[in-house]
Amino acid sequence: MRSTSYPPIMRRLINELSKLPTIGEKSATRLAYHIVTTKSDYSTELAGAIVKAKEKIRLCSECFSLSESECCDICEDETRDQSCICVVEKPADVIAVEKSGGYQGLYHVLHGLWSPLKGVGPEATKMPELLARIKESGIQELVLATSSTVEGDATALYIGNAIADLNINVSRIAQGIPMGGELEYADELTLSHAFEGRRKL
Amino acid sequence: MRSTSYPPIMRRLINELSKLPTIGEKSATRLAYHIVTTKSDYSTELAGAIVKAKEKIRLCSECFSLSESECCDICEDETRDQSCICVVEKPADVIAVEKSGGYQGLYHVLHGLWSPLKGVGPEATKMPELLARIKESGIQELVLATSSTVEGDATALYIGNAIADLNINVSRIAQGIPMGGELEYADELTLSHAFEGRRKL
Repeated sequence: MRSTSYPPIMRRLINELSKLPTIGEKSATRLAYHIVTTKSDYSTELAGAIVKAKEKIRLCSECFSLSESECCDICEDETRDQSCICVVEKPADVIAVEKSGGYQGLYHVLHGLWSPLKGVGPEATKMPELLARIKESGIQELVLATSSTVEGDATALYIGNAIADLNINVSRIAQGIPMGGELEYADELTLSHAFEGRRKL
Repeated sequence: MRSTSYPPIMRRLINELSKLPTIGEKSATRLAYHIVTTKSDYSTELAGAIVKAKEKIRLCSECFSLSESECCDICEDETRDQSCICVVEKPADVIAVEKSGGYQGLYHVLHGLWSPLKGVGPEATKMPELLARIKESGIQELVLATSSTVEGDATALYIGNAIADLNINVSRIAQGIPMGGELEYADELTLSHAFEGRRKL
């Protein structure tokens, strides 16, 4: 008898792990091997952390960022500028903007971008919730901080158009040369954006 | 208040995931985000598969391959050649050799290689168990099928030396040009191995 695959229970673990994004079958096998052969309580800790996180972590009812309570810390913080919303794609972007320290307003996490090519329409993201929130809350400023990609730009444009009639100050974060970036090595589009977005010294 | 990190329960999940091999903090965050936001029962399935695998998968008491029972399917199969043991580094290598279909004997999984630079001695692997097994079982042939790396070669050499006094036919799998490999692009060491290992047509 040839034994060309792992025992069924091992295969099931490999199969579940390979459903994770960016994890192919080879990686899943390596992770499963680690989980199965590590002597410590690691597997119990990991399984516990997964169940607990899925059970307790929810999306903030206001901004859809990750939260352990109905409303996230940022939305509950009354010292933050309630008149401004920064729109981002995913929770990691909120952390990134917060770390930069330059923004004091609220957020709105879309959990996706408008991507006709991938068949993802605006209604598959939290865009309808954003538009409803804007109309209800009477905010004065909206910063569109989606990524500088085709989909990020399209999403920003879509939102901008959808609220064009409202009297809101809408802006898109600057596209240009990154910190430490040398002009010589910048691609053409970045450079053209950098010139378009030039500001008076 | 700045909110420069995820809620504690999310951080715990990211932390546990980043203990997996090849998973850094960025990857762990992406995986955790997927686990937390996927609507289906995926997280329960994944956690269940981890717990079940850790509970049920053990190392075969003979060859140390992964098994659901005391003894793995290969060791229990009496039609296989009981006089020959193939030594490999990890369970995935057993599957690879089995798939190649050219080997009919038993296996021994080391779960590691001799690596003085990483501080891994022979006793940290299943080498002592291999030497004991060889002496007890009276096998006639040993195929050293560790990888063609410095550590794989060192391990093969170490085992070969340790059993030099016994009357056993020891061989190392061939090192040379891989299938479809062009001579022009082969590295010098591979080519030199290919010449050393040349065989009469």
